[in-house]
Amino acid sequence: MSATAAFDKVVVFGVGLIGGSFALALKAAGQVGEVVGFGRSLGSLTQALELGIVDRVGFNIGQEVSSADLVLIATPVGTTPEIMARIAPCLGPQTVVTDAGSTKEDVVAAARANFGERLGQFVPAHPIAGAENSGALAARADLYCHKHVVLTPLPESTPASIARVRAAWECCGGLIRELTPAEHDRVFAAVSHLPHLLSFALVHELARRDNRDLLFAFAASGFRDFTRIAASHPEMWRDICLANRTALLDELDRYRAQLDDLRAALHDNNGARLHETFDVARTARRAWVENKTKD
Amino acid sequence: MSATAAFDKVVVFGVGLIGGSFALALKAAGQVGEVVGFGRSLGSLTQALELGIVDRVGFNIGQEVSSADLVLIATPVGTTPEIMARIAPCLGPQTVVTDAGSTKEDVVAAARANFGERLGQFVPAHPIAGAENSGALAARADLYCHKHVVLTPLPESTPASIARVRAAWECCGGLIRELTPAEHDRVFAAVSHLPHLLSFALVHELARRDNRDLLFAFAASGFRDFTRIAASHPEMWRDICLANRTALLDELDRYRAQLDDLRAALHDNNGARLHETFDVARTARRAWVENKTKD
Repeated sequence: MSATAAFDKVVVFGVGLIGGSFALALKAAGQVGEVVGFGRSLGSLTQALELGIVDRVGFNIGQEVSSADLVLIATPVGTTPEIMARIAPCLGPQTVVTDAGSTKEDVVAAARANFGERLGQFVPAHPIAGAENSGALAARADLYCHKHVVLTPLPESTPASIARVRAAWECCGGLIRELTPAEHDRVFAAVSHLPHLLSFALVHELARRDNRDLLFAFAASGFRDFTRIAASHPEMWRDICLANRTALLDELDRYRAQLDDLRAALHDNNGARLHETFDVARTARRAWVENKTKD
Repeated sequence: MSATAAFDKVVVFGVGLIGGSFALALKAAGQVGEVVGFGRSLGSLTQALELGIVDRVGFNIGQEVSSADLVLIATPVGTTPEIMARIAPCLGPQTVVTDAGSTKEDVVAAARANFGERLGQFVPAHPIAGAENSGALAARADLYCHKHVVLTPLPESTPASIARVRAAWECCGGLIRELTPAEHDRVFAAVSHLPHLLSFALVHELARRDNRDLLFAFAASGFRDFTRIAASHPEMWRDICLANRTALLDELDRYRAQLDDLRAALHDNNGARLHETFDVARTARRAWVENKTKD
């Protein structure tokens, strides 16, 4: 335990890729005294202990949370309200709480329903990082390094809580950005949730055909990249889609209108329209890559 | 020039990634005496000569083709009919012709319109290989190594021509498969042309919004992979879409019906339906990767 640790005690709910990497990053930065883990399965908790992700497995939520400086909720989003309900009565006056959910309006609603007068101690977060694999074994100290972490503070979030949560994610190497919860959910509906839905849709459409083996035999690198995200967790993405349903429906409708336009151009042999669409897309995609590289 | 070369003289129309890699592969395999290149730009021809892709730049099509064992048409698909019209009267009795186009029914139609009694000497091909970059500089001898090469012989293609063309692509390392032109175009509409259209559509839809900078700032690895193919050549993909218009319209309509289903599930908060769709997709995607790895 370091005398200069920014956080003497951190409690992590969910010790998989996201929570585990958060713990490892704080440890690597020498910014945490003790990490206590809670989770749904004893197997993953034992693994997290063996991997040095957590120092102890927690049993008494009230006791652990009341003396914690920082709590991270990194369980599947569907379980967030329940965890909030359980920790809300136990928060110490020094405890700040953050999360790592991919949607934020639902998390804010759950926080409003559960934290009561402790609401100011909660600062929602969404680290824009992931990996092919999940679970404690996939956790690594550099997962958040140079990755965006979006904070969506509530009007009630205290400046001190915001500063503490920001400092924690910065210790993990994250590049902090702030958006409102509604902005966040609209942005990620467009650039993340919709592409996932579209990718799942393509593979599902092909997978249920009689000639799927023939089709898949000739699928190549373009298909591989386009469908990589169709290998994502069904439960997680069901929950994200439902949690961000309104914004995602809006994005889906815009996209369907775009497809209708392209269908009309194709039907009419309108090569100029196809070319213009493809050209705008290519230019934007290339500029995006160049800007990313500059980051 | 090797005394045992399978092809004493090969003529390549288009000395970019596709034609250049074909020439380099035959040379690396010691299966070609001399490669003569034709192309639209003197710059790329000079480059191909300097890179050792071609031994000579051709000037007189009739003279070069009449004494060629093998001709590869690897120019943009829109130029294929014109090249066929120019080479058809000059083919020697020993000359076999193949191409590398991404669509095949249009190529077969062009061949029927142009080759006349020489039609049996033509065997259409589609090597399933590509790269981020194009041009002679991007050409490499191993581009086709362990990649599928689909031959779509015509009923008129002579067994001897099919055997010669098959041998040429096998020399390049290709794994030969045969489909009818119609089968080919339906398969690639589903696993290649549609994904390209969908990827272009997403980037175009985002690129024309006022808040595009905000959106692109938060786009991450899922977006990167999903949209990699949206950086493809607009002209090339316009031509492919138009050439394979009927099959692509059919695929697009199936996909739109799939999106309609997903929209209904999302609208109705039907988590079970979303989950089932995502789960089928993930299972199929993972099985596809495992099968690819076994190849």
